[in-house]
Amino acid sequence: MLSFQEYSVEQLQSLQAELNQQYSKAKSADLKLDMTRGKPCREQLDLSNELSTVLSDHNYLSAEGIDARNYGCPEGLAEMRALFADLLGTKQENVIASGNSSLNLMYDTVARAMLFALPGAARPWGKEEKIRFICPVPGYDRHFFLTNSFGIEMINVPMLPTGPDMDQVEALVAADPSIKGMWLVPVYSNPDGITTSAETCRRLAAMATAAPDFRLFWDNAYVVHHLYPDNQESVPDMIGLCAENGHPDRVFEFASASKITFAGAGVACVASSPNNLAWVRKQMMIQSIGPDKVNQLRHVRFLHNKAGVDAIMARHAAILRPKFEAALKILDERLSGTGCCCFNHPRGGYFISLFVIPGTAAEVVRLAGEAGVQLTPAGNPYPYGKDPEDSNIRLAPSFPTIPELETAVDVLCTCIQLAAVNKILMEK
Amino acid sequence: MLSFQEYSVEQLQSLQAELNQQYSKAKSADLKLDMTRGKPCREQLDLSNELSTVLSDHNYLSAEGIDARNYGCPEGLAEMRALFADLLGTKQENVIASGNSSLNLMYDTVARAMLFALPGAARPWGKEEKIRFICPVPGYDRHFFLTNSFGIEMINVPMLPTGPDMDQVEALVAADPSIKGMWLVPVYSNPDGITTSAETCRRLAAMATAAPDFRLFWDNAYVVHHLYPDNQESVPDMIGLCAENGHPDRVFEFASASKITFAGAGVACVASSPNNLAWVRKQMMIQSIGPDKVNQLRHVRFLHNKAGVDAIMARHAAILRPKFEAALKILDERLSGTGCCCFNHPRGGYFISLFVIPGTAAEVVRLAGEAGVQLTPAGNPYPYGKDPEDSNIRLAPSFPTIPELETAVDVLCTCIQLAAVNKILMEK
Repeated sequence: MLSFQEYSVEQLQSLQAELNQQYSKAKSADLKLDMTRGKPCREQLDLSNELSTVLSDHNYLSAEGIDARNYGCPEGLAEMRALFADLLGTKQENVIASGNSSLNLMYDTVARAMLFALPGAARPWGKEEKIRFICPVPGYDRHFFLTNSFGIEMINVPMLPTGPDMDQVEALVAADPSIKGMWLVPVYSNPDGITTSAETCRRLAAMATAAPDFRLFWDNAYVVHHLYPDNQESVPDMIGLCAENGHPDRVFEFASASKITFAGAGVACVASSPNNLAWVRKQMMIQSIGPDKVNQLRHVRFLHNKAGVDAIMARHAAILRPKFEAALKILDERLSGTGCCCFNHPRGGYFISLFVIPGTAAEVVRLAGEAGVQLTPAGNPYPYGKDPEDSNIRLAPSFPTIPELETAVDVLCTCIQLAAVNKILMEK
Repeated sequence: MLSFQEYSVEQLQSLQAELNQQYSKAKSADLKLDMTRGKPCREQLDLSNELSTVLSDHNYLSAEGIDARNYGCPEGLAEMRALFADLLGTKQENVIASGNSSLNLMYDTVARAMLFALPGAARPWGKEEKIRFICPVPGYDRHFFLTNSFGIEMINVPMLPTGPDMDQVEALVAADPSIKGMWLVPVYSNPDGITTSAETCRRLAAMATAAPDFRLFWDNAYVVHHLYPDNQESVPDMIGLCAENGHPDRVFEFASASKITFAGAGVACVASSPNNLAWVRKQMMIQSIGPDKVNQLRHVRFLHNKAGVDAIMARHAAILRPKFEAALKILDERLSGTGCCCFNHPRGGYFISLFVIPGTAAEVVRLAGEAGVQLTPAGNPYPYGKDPEDSNIRLAPSFPTIPELETAVDVLCTCIQLAAVNKILMEK
């Protein structure tokens, strides 16, 4: 099969006519399909409905004898912290279990670093003239919104199949003391589904940084979110690895039960070194009398332990895997060999990341939107919402049904091909 | 009855001997009673156990058709916002319903004002050379910890029976543009149980402030927490009152279901003007994908409406009122006329505030502690933990049983008398 680039003008014009016809047909179908956000579908949420009855015996005493309904216990219930520690491969004392949102914990950690000097920092980041963060791209849009909201300058570094391009990262952090932080979703990255290699993790833990208060923001959002439970990807315990490499306070790790149980009503955690947690705790004790421990109790009574988490994650995978496979099958059939789109086959997480012909991503999103298929705005997975190549499109296959998904991906393929052919023709 | 001050030295010495005997006896009883924090007791928490079964029908759709389990709806469920609006006498659109902690909302509001310019502010408070807050005293210790953590200077203003001393407040805010904020628990204040008068509210709403970005932090923690439901104290809707007086953006109001349902697992809210809420929302949308809406749904399904809240608050009152009355009975019997302690008979809230002879509060707390009765550290209800008179002691009668409470208050009365007699004798 020839790639579109190799087509003659006549072949391209004939293809264009065919695609325009397909597109018109799609438009007239009056679709309303939303693939914008990585939201679990109803069947996934139903897997955790037992949360609403698991405390119906009204036993609110934690393993330590704390009445979960009352005030207190700002670091969360011991058994909740232990469960997260087990999922993350760290120790219970390295974990604070909190409210429903890991994003909130990330935001608060950055906000706190802006206002109060981190261990090793000469002053709060807010008192520095300029602060920069390394942002592997494409990445999680909400990380970038957050970073930008504090006026922190963002530096793009490409994701490779092994994780962030470490040659670039090492060179940047060694030279520039204003680089204070770096984001990463280390397992099944958002949106590429890339799991950072052990060697990249080691280099991140070991690298020399010009800033003494440099921090990795390790958003382990998909640590147990395998599509193929028998063939799991994972990263080393980063807290331990940083300590072994002489940088014990380098990493703040975040995780959440949001995509294990109820998306909006899970339990989130922050995990880090004793030094960093002492710094967190100091403000956290002033910020709140404590997290919702009743919801933590619900979670430990429902999930029990890591085996319980693995069991429910296998049930999530049974719902999600056919969706990913249905989407990828159409993408493979309609796009492979055309040269107008490449993509990973992710083995976990919530997204499929497409790279279309540079300069056509925004056009594809526009075309799809006009045909009733809402996609995440092109550029969103990049700092400042600006994809320098205008090439990446993020697909979130979890929420729609399989027939909806198949329709949406088929329309999307038409849009990708059409935008590609239009562009190639224009340039010929 | 003579007051202790009027006793002769011989009378005092004889009383001292008697009190020392009482105190030794108390000490030998090996008590372990904790009256430090305003924590609901188990019977109060049990009133809301239905929260753990109210969603057992697995109907998670809000009135607007939102699946409460999923992401989204950053301002909280409409019906939860409406319920808070009803309790506070404001409009639903003036309310954001959030997570489990109103303290967290207060902290975040101050933190946000430090980092991002408030409506009407020239710059973020963190960029000002000096920031001051007015702190009516005695007040809520956690307000002061929070304020101090941001390096904000605190200015004491006395609480009068009508609320904060407005002559002082008006003079201070008119003269000093660095005064950016003021705390108040307007209904059944912590710890005095004072409800701010309508006239004081009007003056707070109307007063001229040198700072264009001055804000009232209106912690309406006890808005429905009446001990005598048939004889309730209340304040006007402060958001409306500020608007009527030409200062629509003056007030941030906070409230919480913590002492309506589960202390650590309630729902909190912030209420304010459209301008202020737009400013809150801007960061809040970046900070979190949304609050725990399942817990909000539990609350609206359990409480239903203001009548439902009033009903459960009457049941709280039936548990708390006998405790307050038992404590006050002993305080009246043992202290009235002695001249060594005065106190309010609060009609709501969670505390009894005692004013002992200046210079003896810390000593009373020490004596009580050594006899096994833990009290809030003296000075805690004042900025910097420093009671200039060393005179105030905060009692929290909610958690202990009535017999425990009676024992504790009796020991406390012995300690108050003993410290008074010791001091008077030393000065004679």
